[in-house]
Amino acid sequence: MLRARDAGRRPVMLAIAGDSAAGKTTLTKGLVECLGEDRMTAVCVDDYHRYDRKERVGKPFTALHPDCNHIDIMEQHLQLLSMGEPILKPVYDHATGELVRPELVTPKDFVIVEGLLPLHTRLARACFDITVYLDPPEPLRHSWKQQRDCGKRGYTPEQVQAELDRREPESAAYIRPQRRWADIVVRFAPVAGRVDPPGTPLSAELLLRPTIDHPDLAGVLAEAGPAGAETAMHLSLHRDDDGRPVDALHVHGYVQPNESEIVKKAIWERVGQRTGDGRLDPDALGRFGEGTSDPLAITQLLLLYHLLDADHRQAA
Amino acid sequence: MLRARDAGRRPVMLAIAGDSAAGKTTLTKGLVECLGEDRMTAVCVDDYHRYDRKERVGKPFTALHPDCNHIDIMEQHLQLLSMGEPILKPVYDHATGELVRPELVTPKDFVIVEGLLPLHTRLARACFDITVYLDPPEPLRHSWKQQRDCGKRGYTPEQVQAELDRREPESAAYIRPQRRWADIVVRFAPVAGRVDPPGTPLSAELLLRPTIDHPDLAGVLAEAGPAGAETAMHLSLHRDDDGRPVDALHVHGYVQPNESEIVKKAIWERVGQRTGDGRLDPDALGRFGEGTSDPLAITQLLLLYHLLDADHRQAA
Repeated sequence: MLRARDAGRRPVMLAIAGDSAAGKTTLTKGLVECLGEDRMTAVCVDDYHRYDRKERVGKPFTALHPDCNHIDIMEQHLQLLSMGEPILKPVYDHATGELVRPELVTPKDFVIVEGLLPLHTRLARACFDITVYLDPPEPLRHSWKQQRDCGKRGYTPEQVQAELDRREPESAAYIRPQRRWADIVVRFAPVAGRVDPPGTPLSAELLLRPTIDHPDLAGVLAEAGPAGAETAMHLSLHRDDDGRPVDALHVHGYVQPNESEIVKKAIWERVGQRTGDGRLDPDALGRFGEGTSDPLAITQLLLLYHLLDADHRQAA
Repeated sequence: MLRARDAGRRPVMLAIAGDSAAGKTTLTKGLVECLGEDRMTAVCVDDYHRYDRKERVGKPFTALHPDCNHIDIMEQHLQLLSMGEPILKPVYDHATGELVRPELVTPKDFVIVEGLLPLHTRLARACFDITVYLDPPEPLRHSWKQQRDCGKRGYTPEQVQAELDRREPESAAYIRPQRRWADIVVRFAPVAGRVDPPGTPLSAELLLRPTIDHPDLAGVLAEAGPAGAETAMHLSLHRDDDGRPVDALHVHGYVQPNESEIVKKAIWERVGQRTGDGRLDPDALGRFGEGTSDPLAITQLLLLYHLLDADHRQAA
């Protein structure tokens, strides 16, 4: 059984970095719901703006720029959370563009920190047990941002496109370089060359860097059956863009649900070796908007494995 | 010459604790103006309210109660400031009773922390080099609060009295016990038994506890001349209410200005031994409202001595 956190025991810290509308909140939400809010604290670090929306008018940078944010205070707060200390976190109201009353955040056993710049500095990175970068193809991310900002935030498509253009140099300079520091790089995308029926979930490609210990995937893959187009998952050795070796785990969105079930079950078993307490809610995984996605669920399961594994190691 | 603060050198931290309208801001203001805002940061710790004014309605305590404040965050921020780290300090708007956008505070060479509860906990006290408690007689403090709250904050005298009554149990339980932890207890009051012309400044009684090294007062007193009613200052050995021995420094408000000048000059010389840089503004001391007070100036001079002495010791 997972023990109550001992006095002085530190929370397990997971970073989920990525550009605007890359899917950070979706990924985070399933993890929080699966582990339970009594054990997990989610923090968005996009609230550390130095200027409110009015003050930013005429400034030579967008909200993405480190100079537009209290990076030193973000670092300080990440350090405090990683030591199990509470923080009084600033709050930026995305609806009004105003900085408002800060809120008390008390870290529970697990802390997920998502946002634009959680991996920007060395000190911030040092606070995390597991680091993730969400790396969808840019056209896909742009369409997600269009959907969200026009749908929920009341912008016109032209406004969103103008904002994307304005932000692009800073995305390139500050957001995307964080990919390099991730233990796991997650890319949801359709598989090139396939034409699948509408509604087919996106596949996921997960680059697993040898910077943390990944679960025994050979065993999972053996259970999934011989590699092939109809298997839910396969693993291949890659060189990343920068020449560094990585494992690439391909999770196929187009396979029959029973194929995905075999993989999910196999990973659940490995998660179960880390926690026998049955307090996890498997139904929380894979949800996005109104639908569900097995590649998303499998990605979350892998992260869950890492969270519980880091916790287990601390306890050992 | 006072050197620029070396990397890793910590600010000198001074606490000024006391009840509402005890004179904390007046005392602080002169010190900041004398040392200069480029070298001194003043922080009020009455902004760590857990609830805004609306939320406090119906709560079984006033804003004075530790449970009504983020004491743990105040402690954390005091620790950070004492290590030279910036904080994002919460801000309570006393005009509207709302908690608003926090502000960045970067500690300079000297940090004055004034407020209701800076000495409430052991951890908070440990952050200070010098601790002061302002201890005016209660009737005097009540009249100051009436003046201020009716004049500047728009309350009626009845409202202010009702608030004083409501706060009294918590003043007794949480504010006044901090007197025990002060290196210097400052009491401005008329001298019992004297009838002085209107406009005569209040005298000051300073209890100097042997918890820090006070300046060579014997020398100052010798310069001031033989103890007597017309001398600006005299020292006497006391037992405090709790039986502990203290020096009581009596600074007389009713003496001729030239008598006070002698004492001020003598203390300035001792301050000068700590700093030869001439960057201090002596005219900033002793000001309150539209008037000036030599006992206030002498009190501030003593605190200035301690600030510079603590800085000097760090550098040594």
